[in-house]
Amino acid sequence: LAHDDLPSMDNDVLRRGKPTCHVEFDEATALLAGDALQSLAFELMVSRPLNDSPARQVEMTRIFARACGSRGMAGGQAIDLASVGKALGQQMTLPELEFMHILKTGALIRASVVLGAMCGHDLPNDQTDRLDRYGKCVGLAFQVVDDILDCESNTEKLGKTAGKDQDANKPTYVSLMGMAPAKKFADELLADALDAVGIFGSKADRLRQLAEFIVRREH
Amino acid sequence: LAHDDLPSMDNDVLRRGKPTCHVEFDEATALLAGDALQSLAFELMVSRPLNDSPARQVEMTRIFARACGSRGMAGGQAIDLASVGKALGQQMTLPELEFMHILKTGALIRASVVLGAMCGHDLPNDQTDRLDRYGKCVGLAFQVVDDILDCESNTEKLGKTAGKDQDANKPTYVSLMGMAPAKKFADELLADALDAVGIFGSKADRLRQLAEFIVRREH
Repeated sequence: LAHDDLPSMDNDVLRRGKPTCHVEFDEATALLAGDALQSLAFELMVSRPLNDSPARQVEMTRIFARACGSRGMAGGQAIDLASVGKALGQQMTLPELEFMHILKTGALIRASVVLGAMCGHDLPNDQTDRLDRYGKCVGLAFQVVDDILDCESNTEKLGKTAGKDQDANKPTYVSLMGMAPAKKFADELLADALDAVGIFGSKADRLRQLAEFIVRREH
Repeated sequence: LAHDDLPSMDNDVLRRGKPTCHVEFDEATALLAGDALQSLAFELMVSRPLNDSPARQVEMTRIFARACGSRGMAGGQAIDLASVGKALGQQMTLPELEFMHILKTGALIRASVVLGAMCGHDLPNDQTDRLDRYGKCVGLAFQVVDDILDCESNTEKLGKTAGKDQDANKPTYVSLMGMAPAKKFADELLADALDAVGIFGSKADRLRQLAEFIVRREH
């Protein structure tokens, strides 16, 4: 998630315990690296046959492009950017926060799950819908847990600056719901994600592990 | 050319007579708009069948992705960024300047010409090579003329800030070759471009007009 940190650029100097790109180099270099990496992602999508159907590969690239753009990650980031530093009465509501996260991180996570399935054989629509629901729940859970960890963890454990959302007066699941309800919400999303992939039996074990990991992680 | 102006960001406040995006809004918004537009470009490449062959559409998307990335526009821009403000003895040589421009603006112009041809029927390799040579010459000519206009024109005519390359102590075709040789070089590139498409007869008239326009333009 290349530009996850723009709104609070000054605060966000660490990722996985290392200086972020714009700190280690400079902003122009970080920006160019993001541009080059985005086109590299598309290049990889079309650099070799992903399956026996070029038409499906075209469709997969389209799904991926939509998840990145103004109706996906970039759009969600723009909403995030617009929300920072607003006065208390003008802050995002919970539904608005959810909409932002569904675009900002959710779209790309959902696309990843569905595209993984599309590398294989054709799936019936209802199975694709279930994978999409799994992706949506896991994507939101990721964000809820991120907000919880930002409050409860510390910078050393996180590998990025802790407490920055509070400092930036950013609306989060914790600030809008409270800590206990946010934790309950994360658990509900995990249960919903597991329910969505129930019909796949042991074939979905990796997806279950991933969902558990995202909600139970400590950094 | 989304980030054409990064190295001299502070100087570059006008495009086509209007404030640039980062001036009108802010840098974070301009950056996000660039991200969203890049993915939109890819989305359009795959949003509908371009011809009867999805396999060729995949190949076209690959050509486009390469022209954008580290071995194309973004890579050329990175070289440009690294070259600004260097001491006199460490400035780019003419071959280095040419390499930079072949990546920075040339790659996307070449890709545009070849992709246009690929929308139609299969072309013999030698014809594709000729279109590629045309694109390479026109792409370089565009840059040589840009450098000439930056010296000879004024801000009102250009619709962007004139003289900024000199102010930034940037190596240009004019600073490295001199004005008269730069003009001669632009004419030679035009002649070479026209020669490359000679075999196509009147079918290449639009390409000829485009090449003439690029070299003869006054802003």
